[in-house]
Amino acid sequence: MDFPARQRKLREHLATTRFDALLISHLPNIRYLCGFTGSTGFLLVEESGSVFFTDSRYDTQAHDEVKAAKVVIASKGLLLSVAAWLGRRRRRRWDIGLEAEHFILADKKRLHDLLPSGTRLRDAPALVERLRMVKDHDELERIRAAVNLGARLYARALKVLRHGLNKAGMKESEVAAEMEFAARRAGAEAMSFPTIIASGPRSALPHGRASDQPIRPGGFVVCDFGVILRGYCSDQTRTVWVGAASRRARHVYEAVREAQQAAVDAVRPGTRVGDVDAAARNVLRKAGLGRYFTHSTGHGVGLEIHEAPRVAAGQREILQPGMVITIEPGVYFPGHWGVRIEDMVAVTAGGREVLTPTSKDFLAV
Amino acid sequence: MDFPARQRKLREHLATTRFDALLISHLPNIRYLCGFTGSTGFLLVEESGSVFFTDSRYDTQAHDEVKAAKVVIASKGLLLSVAAWLGRRRRRRWDIGLEAEHFILADKKRLHDLLPSGTRLRDAPALVERLRMVKDHDELERIRAAVNLGARLYARALKVLRHGLNKAGMKESEVAAEMEFAARRAGAEAMSFPTIIASGPRSALPHGRASDQPIRPGGFVVCDFGVILRGYCSDQTRTVWVGAASRRARHVYEAVREAQQAAVDAVRPGTRVGDVDAAARNVLRKAGLGRYFTHSTGHGVGLEIHEAPRVAAGQREILQPGMVITIEPGVYFPGHWGVRIEDMVAVTAGGREVLTPTSKDFLAV
Repeated sequence: MDFPARQRKLREHLATTRFDALLISHLPNIRYLCGFTGSTGFLLVEESGSVFFTDSRYDTQAHDEVKAAKVVIASKGLLLSVAAWLGRRRRRRWDIGLEAEHFILADKKRLHDLLPSGTRLRDAPALVERLRMVKDHDELERIRAAVNLGARLYARALKVLRHGLNKAGMKESEVAAEMEFAARRAGAEAMSFPTIIASGPRSALPHGRASDQPIRPGGFVVCDFGVILRGYCSDQTRTVWVGAASRRARHVYEAVREAQQAAVDAVRPGTRVGDVDAAARNVLRKAGLGRYFTHSTGHGVGLEIHEAPRVAAGQREILQPGMVITIEPGVYFPGHWGVRIEDMVAVTAGGREVLTPTSKDFLAV
Repeated sequence: MDFPARQRKLREHLATTRFDALLISHLPNIRYLCGFTGSTGFLLVEESGSVFFTDSRYDTQAHDEVKAAKVVIASKGLLLSVAAWLGRRRRRRWDIGLEAEHFILADKKRLHDLLPSGTRLRDAPALVERLRMVKDHDELERIRAAVNLGARLYARALKVLRHGLNKAGMKESEVAAEMEFAARRAGAEAMSFPTIIASGPRSALPHGRASDQPIRPGGFVVCDFGVILRGYCSDQTRTVWVGAASRRARHVYEAVREAQQAAVDAVRPGTRVGDVDAAARNVLRKAGLGRYFTHSTGHGVGLEIHEAPRVAAGQREILQPGMVITIEPGVYFPGHWGVRIEDMVAVTAGGREVLTPTSKDFLAV
């Protein structure tokens, strides 16, 4: 990972703002800029260099991991250490940008009380998130590996489902457990979010975490899952029917699939993300299903499972090569069932590359 | 769970403050007060009642789960919905408390811009966290179940370790994978934090997540892990030697064990948490190991893996019956090895109850 290049880009942004320095508090942003993977730290980025503050638990790890920043181990408290560092600089005026989307009110007050009076703390926009939207080569490699592992887990889930349906009472959570075990054994650090295995009427819950409910014939199972591999997330959804499918189920599935494909086809550099969302929404509206598509079409994925850009109605962000987004329309009939299909898609110079290799054909197990 | 009783206690606190209402944004606090387990929402608590705001993805789930609060599904945005609700109240002056330890700067600004001018947004202290420090009967039951599941996982880990050492190249992550699989199959929602299986020199990293490193004879393995079961966390650490142990290893282990026991014995109602920390620290200091104990002695556990009180040097919180804390001193020789022993302990009227049932005897596998 080219941490100096990332910090250089941030400094170029910084030069166009009123901030003399940025205090980065969001851990994925810290990891992106200097490589630290622990759970406590602040990164202070100035034009002249960067300083990373953490506590003694991370002494060894910080010195091993952190690149392109000086490491300071705080003995009394992180904010105290940051304030002492800034105080020693003896600048007369000093505008520090705080990450407004992450910094909490109490820390701002504490820091304010610790700093000399000429220091101003101001809300900074999501500068690092904007950089992170466009993935570099190393990141795309890792994302690709995570997506491919995710796809292998789904193959495992189908095997477990087919096998489990022969015996009675196979639970949603057992499918999830098998997938998560396989993920771990394949080197995943963790799942990228709580695995959704939602069967029967639970398939109509867009966020139906795997529960103790037995999977029964006569309904869809929504499988929405992802892994974290070397820091990067995958995200994939497939929906299968259990038993003999009705015409209605097939019809709705095909409409969602068509909507998903339309949105995928709309992905190319220069397009607004809102127009990608509209592409999926238009298909479902024409199929008379518009009001059952109750969420947005997708989101960026990278170090975090949900990151910029939001692929939602009216959003004006312009797609650029190197962005990686999900395309995941769904249709939900509360109390009955639901269908969602989701791929991860990378924006390329020529258009797009669908990263998720799994078939989207209608499948009954 | 008696949500009305919890909200009643919060309202009693509220009556002693300048706040007309509290806007609860921290999800574990929301879950504690009204039962919602999803990932998006705000709970507005006034003297006259509570309102829970979430988005359409959680429509069904919120109506199923939320108790003791009216449910509002936001169609345009959560903060917009909160602001509209407050605006309709047409109060001339209106002091809203925001959870300062959780609310982010950007949301405060957005909310401020949406609200009528007579509304003041002010930092509120961690009122709900203070309530949550003392667990009620239902919570203690769930914590007990989580701790017992955790202990069963450790038995599994030992079996895997013993078996794995017969073949070469058993990785730390394989032990973690087996534990996590067993946790899932036993009904755990997730692990309560990334499982630490830290062997050889990695045992000297207080936060050494399970890695691909093979476990080799001639060092300690620190196993620090926990589950989330029905929302409540467990947290446990045991350290085992691999191979034939040196006298030095046994000696240090016994010192940590003695320090851990001293801190456990110090737990009783009316004692300051700082004195519990000191009890462990004194033992290690007398053993000449004080400077290798580089973190605090423990923390509260409940809906979150780290919650109040902090069991650390100088902390003045007074122990009360119903509090549940960890006691986890450790000693680390960077580059060589480390030892940590951790139990969960409930404060009782008569003193304490060690919840973790696992033996702390020195063990070599």
